[in-house]
Amino acid sequence: MPKVSDKGSRMPESPIRKLVPYSEIAKKKGHKVYHLNIGQPDIRTPEVAMNSIKNLDIKVLEYSHSAGFESYRTKLSQYYKDHGLPIDVADIIITTGGSEALMFAMGSTMDVDDEIIIPEPFYANYNGFSTASGVKVVPVISTIDTGFALPPIADFEKLITPKTKAILICNPGNPTGYLYSKEEMQQLADLVKKHDLFLIADEVYREFTYDGDPHYSVMNIPGIEENAIMIDSVSKRYSMCGARIGCIVSKNKEVMATAMKFAQARLSPPTFAQIASEAALQTPKSYFDEVITEYRERRDILIEALNKIEGVKVATPKGAFYCIAQLPIDDADKFAQWLLESFDLNGETVMVAPAAGFYSTPGVGLNEVRIAYVLKKEDLIKSVDILKEAIKTYNA
Amino acid sequence: MPKVSDKGSRMPESPIRKLVPYSEIAKKKGHKVYHLNIGQPDIRTPEVAMNSIKNLDIKVLEYSHSAGFESYRTKLSQYYKDHGLPIDVADIIITTGGSEALMFAMGSTMDVDDEIIIPEPFYANYNGFSTASGVKVVPVISTIDTGFALPPIADFEKLITPKTKAILICNPGNPTGYLYSKEEMQQLADLVKKHDLFLIADEVYREFTYDGDPHYSVMNIPGIEENAIMIDSVSKRYSMCGARIGCIVSKNKEVMATAMKFAQARLSPPTFAQIASEAALQTPKSYFDEVITEYRERRDILIEALNKIEGVKVATPKGAFYCIAQLPIDDADKFAQWLLESFDLNGETVMVAPAAGFYSTPGVGLNEVRIAYVLKKEDLIKSVDILKEAIKTYNA
Ligand SMILES: Cc1ncc(COP(=O)(O)O)c(C=O)c1O
Ligand SMILES: Cc1ncc(COP(=O)(O)O)c(C=O)c1O
Repeated sequence: MPKVSDKGSRMPESPIRKLVPYSEIAKKKGHKVYHLNIGQPDIRTPEVAMNSIKNLDIKVLEYSHSAGFESYRTKLSQYYKDHGLPIDVADIIITTGGSEALMFAMGSTMDVDDEIIIPEPFYANYNGFSTASGVKVVPVISTIDTGFALPPIADFEKLITPKTKAILICNPGNPTGYLYSKEEMQQLADLVKKHDLFLIADEVYREFTYDGDPHYSVMNIPGIEENAIMIDSVSKRYSMCGARIGCIVSKNKEVMATAMKFAQARLSPPTFAQIASEAALQTPKSYFDEVITEYRERRDILIEALNKIEGVKVATPKGAFYCIAQLPIDDADKFAQWLLESFDLNGETVMVAPAAGFYSTPGVGLNEVRIAYVLKKEDLIKSVDILKEAIKTYNA
Repeated sequence: MPKVSDKGSRMPESPIRKLVPYSEIAKKKGHKVYHLNIGQPDIRTPEVAMNSIKNLDIKVLEYSHSAGFESYRTKLSQYYKDHGLPIDVADIIITTGGSEALMFAMGSTMDVDDEIIIPEPFYANYNGFSTASGVKVVPVISTIDTGFALPPIADFEKLITPKTKAILICNPGNPTGYLYSKEEMQQLADLVKKHDLFLIADEVYREFTYDGDPHYSVMNIPGIEENAIMIDSVSKRYSMCGARIGCIVSKNKEVMATAMKFAQARLSPPTFAQIASEAALQTPKSYFDEVITEYRERRDILIEALNKIEGVKVATPKGAFYCIAQLPIDDADKFAQWLLESFDLNGETVMVAPAAGFYSTPGVGLNEVRIAYVLKKEDLIKSVDILKEAIKTYNA
């Protein structure tokens, strides 16, 4: 019997996937499970996007251009310009989700055994994309004590080798909710410029910032046009995760020409979803105002409630819709499993994502969980109540 | 300035892409260009598929399951069973086009520097997927003289090394139109069994066969369940190329578990397109009867007309909608360019795909072109007329 590849064996499982059998157990017991573990927003998709595919008069559902529809790229460029980002049509290739944009970015900039430095904790699938690309993730630890601020630049410099090709950041961060300041972005810019590295910024949560602090895009730093690669997506912005539309953006012509070859090999991004994403650009500002207000209120309620639990430490997220909470428990993996398998409060329990899966360094974050605030406020309040009781019971 | 990856530099350009600037020249001259060069069918997408997305009542466009909607996988399994293929739901992962299925198949079975044997000429993007995966393509030549039949098994055996992990076939073939016989499939089965290799069969043209010869799927050969991986797609079957839905199919549990990890990393295949693809399964048989009749008639007209041109040799395709034609010219690359740049017959010309791009061995197929019969019959007839005059003029 032929064997699967080593690469395939090394491909990581999603940190949440292991818990699925336990959530089945909870469901079988008839327990209601509050899902604090997922990155799937409960926010309504804008109607203008959903309606756009209802009256299509397409006779033949053809491949689109490999870079995406020209009309969509043109409007998207305008959208960025309206938001202060100097991004031209030629700087954009439409991809099948931000996920594919990340794959194209890695493939275009890195060879097998090359190294990419990523502040951890980080979006778990960066591990998957790196493994698939044969690239080595070199983590640089950011800690809950600083609220997951950018680690000192000296920490990065210590890790740079001739194999280092890029630094990857997520801004605002999943799972940290951290929003890099202008100074931090400038430090990174100086660093990549000095060492001739790419700076790949995953900005799929760009719109989700809560304290009036501005978002500094990698496309907004003068002087690193050749180093900067931005990853974007409609998944979170318009609550259109199922569309599977994102983009890779860069002013580096060689990077774009190379990414284009990857894009051509897979032919085109999905047509219906491009149509809906193009229409989504007409979403009224009021939609975003409401969404941001909703997320901010959720965040405030969640963080306040978490802070009231004895022994819990949480870094207040400034953006995105996640936070990392340190719990007074021994092992978040065991705890998360136990919550589903053995605990309930009046027939209800919660599912959380053990944070170890977001770290690449073994043994770090073992008593941390990631909590996503993609639930209604009442449900968040209930969830934290359950968590509080659970911690007591678990430690008793 | 940071440099792109070696892998990225090695990524091949599509063999047709180089001709695009020349087709722009033809258009600027006001010439009408008949596109014999593309794999985009002109056939109407079934209405049942297009209508399925018109009355959706989706509030939140969520990620689907990474393996695709259970409902779609269930119906697809039934579709295969109705067509004599014993494929269960667990054997199917829905992908973003057959393209992604090919990437998952390579990633799951091959490591960097592993070798995959492919009869050439082959679908040009196999080169791109191999380069992206760091895998080495080892071509085994099939020739126009045998109509692109399976090369002798001894030719394969000569190429097998400890690095060989898989054999990849396309059945029916793009660009050859060849349909492997039961005997040929059995020979391949014996070979992969003997050497413990995977047999990856790209069957995206399965339904397109014209002479009453049955299609023998890799999933239909007893005894190689652990070796067989099938690649499928809705792109051509329902003329839904823009949907971007395909699947990877295997009974090898380890392969499927591994492919699933790649699928999880990219989250999910597109939702709208899955809905349309699920609905497409209700396409009435009459649709296929009409489509097959249309393609058969086109093929017959095209091949007859080509055979009437002096010095042209063509292998009659038994399936798919392409053929390779050998022309009495020196260099198909130059000729294809000249057709667009410098030739017209009453203001019309044709665009063909030089076949060298479908070979991996340098210097082979230089006087061959691939012609796709995705045009109306009148246009095919006109195209061949133009080609005939062009050959005369070119050689004069
Ligand atoms: C940080 C980050 N980047 C990228 C993605 C990929 O999203 P998509 O492929 O849906 O655009 C996600 C999804 O959760 C994410 O959290
Ligand atoms: C032989 C073959 N395999 C796979 C594909 C990929 O098709 P898709 O990704 O649209 O399913 C094509 C498209 O032309 C093809 O010709």
